[in-house]
Amino acid sequence: MAVYTHLGAEDLAQLIAHYEVGSLISAKGIAEGVSNSNWLVETSGPDGKGARYILTMYERRIETSDLPFFLGLLDHLAAKGCPVPRTIHDRSGAYYRMIGDKAVALIEFLPGVSVDRPTVGQARAVGRALAQMHLASQDFAMSRANGLDISMSHRTLEHCGEAALSGIDSELPTYIDRAAQLRDLWPVDLPRAICHTDLFPDNVLMLGDRVSALIDFYFAAEDSMAYDLAVTHASWCFEDGGHRYLPDVGQALVAGYEETRPLEPSEREQLPLLAQGACLRFVASRAEDWLNTPADALVTRKDPMDFARRLQFYADAGSGAFERPR
Amino acid sequence: MAVYTHLGAEDLAQLIAHYEVGSLISAKGIAEGVSNSNWLVETSGPDGKGARYILTMYERRIETSDLPFFLGLLDHLAAKGCPVPRTIHDRSGAYYRMIGDKAVALIEFLPGVSVDRPTVGQARAVGRALAQMHLASQDFAMSRANGLDISMSHRTLEHCGEAALSGIDSELPTYIDRAAQLRDLWPVDLPRAICHTDLFPDNVLMLGDRVSALIDFYFAAEDSMAYDLAVTHASWCFEDGGHRYLPDVGQALVAGYEETRPLEPSEREQLPLLAQGACLRFVASRAEDWLNTPADALVTRKDPMDFARRLQFYADAGSGAFERPR
Repeated sequence: MAVYTHLGAEDLAQLIAHYEVGSLISAKGIAEGVSNSNWLVETSGPDGKGARYILTMYERRIETSDLPFFLGLLDHLAAKGCPVPRTIHDRSGAYYRMIGDKAVALIEFLPGVSVDRPTVGQARAVGRALAQMHLASQDFAMSRANGLDISMSHRTLEHCGEAALSGIDSELPTYIDRAAQLRDLWPVDLPRAICHTDLFPDNVLMLGDRVSALIDFYFAAEDSMAYDLAVTHASWCFEDGGHRYLPDVGQALVAGYEETRPLEPSEREQLPLLAQGACLRFVASRAEDWLNTPADALVTRKDPMDFARRLQFYADAGSGAFERPR
Repeated sequence: MAVYTHLGAEDLAQLIAHYEVGSLISAKGIAEGVSNSNWLVETSGPDGKGARYILTMYERRIETSDLPFFLGLLDHLAAKGCPVPRTIHDRSGAYYRMIGDKAVALIEFLPGVSVDRPTVGQARAVGRALAQMHLASQDFAMSRANGLDISMSHRTLEHCGEAALSGIDSELPTYIDRAAQLRDLWPVDLPRAICHTDLFPDNVLMLGDRVSALIDFYFAAEDSMAYDLAVTHASWCFEDGGHRYLPDVGQALVAGYEETRPLEPSEREQLPLLAQGACLRFVASRAEDWLNTPADALVTRKDPMDFARRLQFYADAGSGAFERPR
């Protein structure tokens, strides 16, 4: 949540000159993205009527070799009518440019705000948008493996170690074994697509009940579509740090998804397990970040127990968490 | 340079409803301000044609009792034609509102970008805008004492202590005595106005050679106008961490100022001393911040020696730094 690199007016104007977007009018560093610096940039626009863009500088974690996938995916999905920002190509047609040793991309600005407490109507709209994205990605020519799969979650927790995990919470070490069990049961034959894999509320912009943009595709990868729905379910349908499940929101999310793409019986059957795996992915990465972040650092550490509690909910509820309303 | 508080769509929409600005369309936390959180907010506008605002939440260092001064000053200067953003008042006419225990204000958004390497034309424009502000503030009804005056700089350095200062740089302890000398020589009878006192390049937005906005008035206070010019001179006219003075930029800044408000002989005479005092104010606050910020913290510490070098330049150059070009 920071801007890691300073870009002055001169640097920005020089960059913008490589694009068909007019001249620089305004630029504000925005506090979004954990591995990127971002600016909200206003220009006179290609037609002189003004235009806005997000300028992203890739700082770390993201491989430049993955950028054609991420940025091409935006174009592909936008062309198919998904609420996804387009990549603005430079005058030579390139997806991204380099400033020094860092890659930068100019991306369409879309309106909307992220909600903290989704309503039933908003959850339904997000479900529909997720299914639409899954269908639209089917004929995208590129692919990318999901490096943050259940095996990685298990390895990450094992690498943290029982002693360190118990320092965060006495229950946390038990999640190493739970991860191994989930990994061994993990279904490999569910229908696949390019998945967002991180569609938390802050990665969805809304105008009222309408989804105006799905953003931050930098974890996008090929995976089972039902897993992506499970990630979204786990990240949208709880309150109070995972203590309270919101059944109406959960049902609306799945119902919205099925309006656009009905789940196959095998997917529905596996949702409770997939949701536990989804939770575990965030338990693992948050535990790792927690142990690598000093307690007095200025960045807020996210509590891994928030998703450990959600995992426990899915383990207890079984298929009940995904039943259709009567 | 951060957003310290999370405000979700629901909080923002609730706040915006108290203003005559239409409905919320977009909000991005922006990485500006050291003691505030800021959001660039887009709404449908009072006339439905769209409008943008800066939403500022006052996090620390700023006393709520000072807000009528700061926010009223913006209105006063804007009404007089200065390039300064207006305060948007809520439906009851209030300058600011509270969210929990924090004050927030909605401020006009103005275009423009901050320059890193000012041209002669840009420095001249900034000089003119500063003088215009000084003249426009003469009949502003409120006032505020400058807490960060030369006496405070001296006290701050003394409080840091010789041992700690020498840990930053072996020359730094000598600045305690220099501060005492400057304090004893400080002129008290120069013409006064409400001064910005912190008009660094990042507090000026420009469109080409035009000043589109002076921003961040949260150090504004009554002081001598020539001191404000000296602060601006010290912060605009050097390169390479204070190692290199830019005479063309410096002359253009003063010339621009004098186009709008000619300096009195006593002011011109005191400029070398005022500039040393201006540098000392930043030597002192940066030394204090340096000692209070762990070396491994995520925020960048600003080197107090940057302004110590500028101070030395003014001490060596005397009136030569402010001579009119022949």
